[in-house]
Amino acid sequence: MSRPAHRRPEYHKINKDLFVLTYGALVAQLCKDYEKDEDVNKYLDTMGYGIGTRLIEDFLARSCVRRCHSYSEIADIIAQVAFKMYLGITPSVTCNNASRNEFSLILDKNPLAEFVEELPAGRSSLCYSNLLCGIIRGALEMVHLAADVTFLKDRLKGDSVTEIGITFLKKLDEKKYRRKK
Amino acid sequence: MSRPAHRRPEYHKINKDLFVLTYGALVAQLCKDYEKDEDVNKYLDTMGYGIGTRLIEDFLARSCVRRCHSYSEIADIIAQVAFKMYLGITPSVTCNNASRNEFSLILDKNPLAEFVEELPAGRSSLCYSNLLCGIIRGALEMVHLAADVTFLKDRLKGDSVTEIGITFLKKLDEKKYRRKK
Repeated sequence: MSRPAHRRPEYHKINKDLFVLTYGALVAQLCKDYEKDEDVNKYLDTMGYGIGTRLIEDFLARSCVRRCHSYSEIADIIAQVAFKMYLGITPSVTCNNASRNEFSLILDKNPLAEFVEELPAGRSSLCYSNLLCGIIRGALEMVHLAADVTFLKDRLKGDSVTEIGITFLKKLDEKKYRRKK
Repeated sequence: MSRPAHRRPEYHKINKDLFVLTYGALVAQLCKDYEKDEDVNKYLDTMGYGIGTRLIEDFLARSCVRRCHSYSEIADIIAQVAFKMYLGITPSVTCNNASRNEFSLILDKNPLAEFVEELPAGRSSLCYSNLLCGIIRGALEMVHLAADVTFLKDRLKGDSVTEIGITFLKKLDEKKYRRKK
């Protein structure tokens, strides 16, 4: 995960509302297409995975991240660099187990759901922002890190915060995931 | 269209690639759902319409646009203020008829199609970025301006530029579309 710093100028940014509303339209379309929430969640995750596998190159090119030596460092980079860069927010990170491979990203505010007050009727199991889980999973896989990424809490479901759980599945093998310079 | 200047800070911006890739996923999903290009185009337009009717409030709140006295001024504001604000580009504007109600926005570069090299196989009538037409139509309607908005040219179809045609349908009635202060 090392790469020289290289920032693209401002034109690489767009207005957030346009994205948030377009994402809402996408979720609405999927809810129309798939009767079961689980199928919508799965589709959003798969779609996100594809996006993550493409975004990672951009992320590595634009960020100044150095090589990581622990899962903890990686979780911090996802929260402090990636979320900041792509969504303009910085979730807080907690480690959830002694073997230090389970982490939570805690979002006080979820930009993707900014215009959503509650889940649609009859859609209580919908993970509205599941695209994010897929994106993280896809991006990590491209740097040879297998992970389970799921929503553990969601404000849209009445929780006080939105929480994304990341469980790294394999022993970190530095040689494997390090990008060639 | 008058409103005091009020700009939100930088956190209102997000990374463009995330939006462009998510939009691509949306179009891919619609192509899976609808066999005919015309149906996909119509769906994107309708979806954009809904987005436009919501974005206009944000646009009026954030932009410094003054009241417009002609269709020509409105076309300029769409190109120079709205496109710049939401997509980071400024299309050039041409007027296409003597009665000055038909305009073209000419995009040298279309951010929505940035990662698309060509239309999917068997999808030669797809208006890939048709969401934009719907957004413009929806936003205009909210300020009481009826318009036809369609793609006249598209680089994805082999044209040298991408061109969006806007035809204003009714006599501009200042009292009607002026927002209450």
